[in-house]
Amino acid sequence: MAKVAIMGYGTVGSGVYDIIKMNSDKLRKSAGEELEIKYILDIRDFDDHPEKQLFTKDVKDIINDDEVSVVAEVMGGLHPAYEFTRELLEAGKSVVTSNKELVATYGSELMAIAKEKNVNYLFEASVGGGIPVIRPLSRCLSANNIKRIAGILNGTTNYILYQMITNNKSFETALSSAQANGYAERNPAADIEGHDACRKIAILSSLAAGVEVDYNKIGTEGITNITLDDVRAASAAGAVIKLIGYAEFLDNGKVYAHVAPMMIKKSSMLSGIDDVYNGILITGDAVGDVLFYGAGAGKMPTASAVVADMVDAAIHRTRRRYIGWEKADKDIVAKADEKKFRYFVRADISADTGAFGEVEAVPSAAESEKAFITAPMTASELDGIAVGIKTAIRVLD
Amino acid sequence: MAKVAIMGYGTVGSGVYDIIKMNSDKLRKSAGEELEIKYILDIRDFDDHPEKQLFTKDVKDIINDDEVSVVAEVMGGLHPAYEFTRELLEAGKSVVTSNKELVATYGSELMAIAKEKNVNYLFEASVGGGIPVIRPLSRCLSANNIKRIAGILNGTTNYILYQMITNNKSFETALSSAQANGYAERNPAADIEGHDACRKIAILSSLAAGVEVDYNKIGTEGITNITLDDVRAASAAGAVIKLIGYAEFLDNGKVYAHVAPMMIKKSSMLSGIDDVYNGILITGDAVGDVLFYGAGAGKMPTASAVVADMVDAAIHRTRRRYIGWEKADKDIVAKADEKKFRYFVRADISADTGAFGEVEAVPSAAESEKAFITAPMTASELDGIAVGIKTAIRVLD
Repeated sequence: MAKVAIMGYGTVGSGVYDIIKMNSDKLRKSAGEELEIKYILDIRDFDDHPEKQLFTKDVKDIINDDEVSVVAEVMGGLHPAYEFTRELLEAGKSVVTSNKELVATYGSELMAIAKEKNVNYLFEASVGGGIPVIRPLSRCLSANNIKRIAGILNGTTNYILYQMITNNKSFETALSSAQANGYAERNPAADIEGHDACRKIAILSSLAAGVEVDYNKIGTEGITNITLDDVRAASAAGAVIKLIGYAEFLDNGKVYAHVAPMMIKKSSMLSGIDDVYNGILITGDAVGDVLFYGAGAGKMPTASAVVADMVDAAIHRTRRRYIGWEKADKDIVAKADEKKFRYFVRADISADTGAFGEVEAVPSAAESEKAFITAPMTASELDGIAVGIKTAIRVLD
Repeated sequence: MAKVAIMGYGTVGSGVYDIIKMNSDKLRKSAGEELEIKYILDIRDFDDHPEKQLFTKDVKDIINDDEVSVVAEVMGGLHPAYEFTRELLEAGKSVVTSNKELVATYGSELMAIAKEKNVNYLFEASVGGGIPVIRPLSRCLSANNIKRIAGILNGTTNYILYQMITNNKSFETALSSAQANGYAERNPAADIEGHDACRKIAILSSLAAGVEVDYNKIGTEGITNITLDDVRAASAAGAVIKLIGYAEFLDNGKVYAHVAPMMIKKSSMLSGIDDVYNGILITGDAVGDVLFYGAGAGKMPTASAVVADMVDAAIHRTRRRYIGWEKADKDIVAKADEKKFRYFVRADISADTGAFGEVEAVPSAAESEKAFITAPMTASELDGIAVGIKTAIRVLD
């Protein structure tokens, strides 16, 4: 019997509770023992809950209880999640989390504490919701040097772009629809400005590199500047626009990363990842391309990944799992200009394309403009060209 | 330093050798120690090989060498792979394999020996080539009751169908093209008659059920009866035909499974898995649908999965990994008629659809015939209807 605790009884936390109750037989088989919830931490009252006796408002109850070996931190936010996690790890408990902000910000430190204490800090749910990606990237592709990661990592923005693409909605209307459906927060900045995807690509690229990729250094652009005209122009050119978390592992040992809207050809598997779904395309030097696809958020999918980590932590209670990264001893994040992209450009019909190198002409959506794909160039090189560019979007080749 | 051996120096075996040499730095990081190849077993001579001193023709050299802890069995076929694997496990060595025939046939027995000897028998490469699916299914989705698995598990047949769909090639021409490209054997029966996919869905469904699903009991139909007219009719109806390994975990505790061509709507992610690629769609009760996609065969992708298992076996040298299944103590394979499907039917233009229940009419590719989708029915119910059916193909709903 593994005694466990849940910290935070919101959407994901109640999903974790539900799965542990609903699938107890399966969990007993998977873990080799039962998972028994001993505490649920939340500052709110849940007097009507059928197991209201499990609730506590004091994290010390969990920290000081030697019987508890595995804790799910699903409270979100940096504080007090960071302090609680640190104290729990130091008390010799394994912690699993869905908290991408915490993993991206304090992951290196928390992993080092877990290593020192011979316990586990697992975070499968922090990227891609229920989609298995952290463990496959770390273990199943362990024989590969990872060359590139390109992911649709944020369901809200994917839904908005999908509504723009398929239903001709403007950005504002699509955002309202996302809010009405519960896919977007009332304050949607973290999603639409790319910050959520930035944390996630930081986690994936840190894992692939084995050292921390500082998310503060990842150029991050959201979808707020994408117009219906852009979406239509991409469509006329046989492509779609998706918000992509991108990381490329350069030959010089550095990691180039960004979050930005990118042009995805219809022939790419990523182009078919619609609605609120997430998809992560990973390229290894031996395996080539592999894609992981599914529900990137939501109560039960995210809880599915949290509980799988709890099972893993229960199995490995006295043995470390080697999933994580270390603090970088030097800056490994490449400068933006260390990587060239082709750009999908909408320009005035009269614009001279000479400055863009050998361009690939693509059909245009409007008579008043031309559309083309530039030769590979750096962001600075593109910025240096001032000839009536309406939009320039990196192409995922 | 983990000393390892490779049994079989064919396509996959030489890929395993290449990855261990090429990515030694990465492997040292992943495994926490170096993987050093001590033996390569093959009955052929490799006198020109740069490390010809590694080759042996006698498996006893490996079995009797206490230094060797991990062996990759990539020879294929049942015998002597079975006998060699059994002896190696009994000698306390972990074995990893890409041999789907062996895993499907003797897996339960070999896993039991591995358990008894506290070593590992790992088989990530046996399904989906380099695509991570065995470990994600077993570990990352461990909190889920698996409801269904539907996979494009054979690259050769997917290539043939793709050529029929996109290039209007007949089955025979597409098969010749697959052979010319090295995607199909000169004797292609194992692929085109569905036997290869049958082994793979048996492995996946055994893993999900935790007990052996006997592949001999899985109804298996290949693609040899699929005509260009079928493919065109599916296209007119907004779908494609793919060879699907299908398993559904019924409420009565049994596993329904088949290998057969199925009609896949264009809206399904499986419809976009083209060329020689594989894709596996897994549905869990908590996570919903997740899809794994990539190269399902080939030297380096398959070797990538074999070497990842070698790394895992090296890490877990003295600790068991819990990936596998046990012999079933009763027959858990459902009879064909325990599961109803809707069928995509091509019939004479004059055919009466009354016997098919509430049908869904779909556009027809030819004036001389009608096309429709039946109400859900069993195979026996369909067989009982004798009104000018040209083709009836199960629909993946």
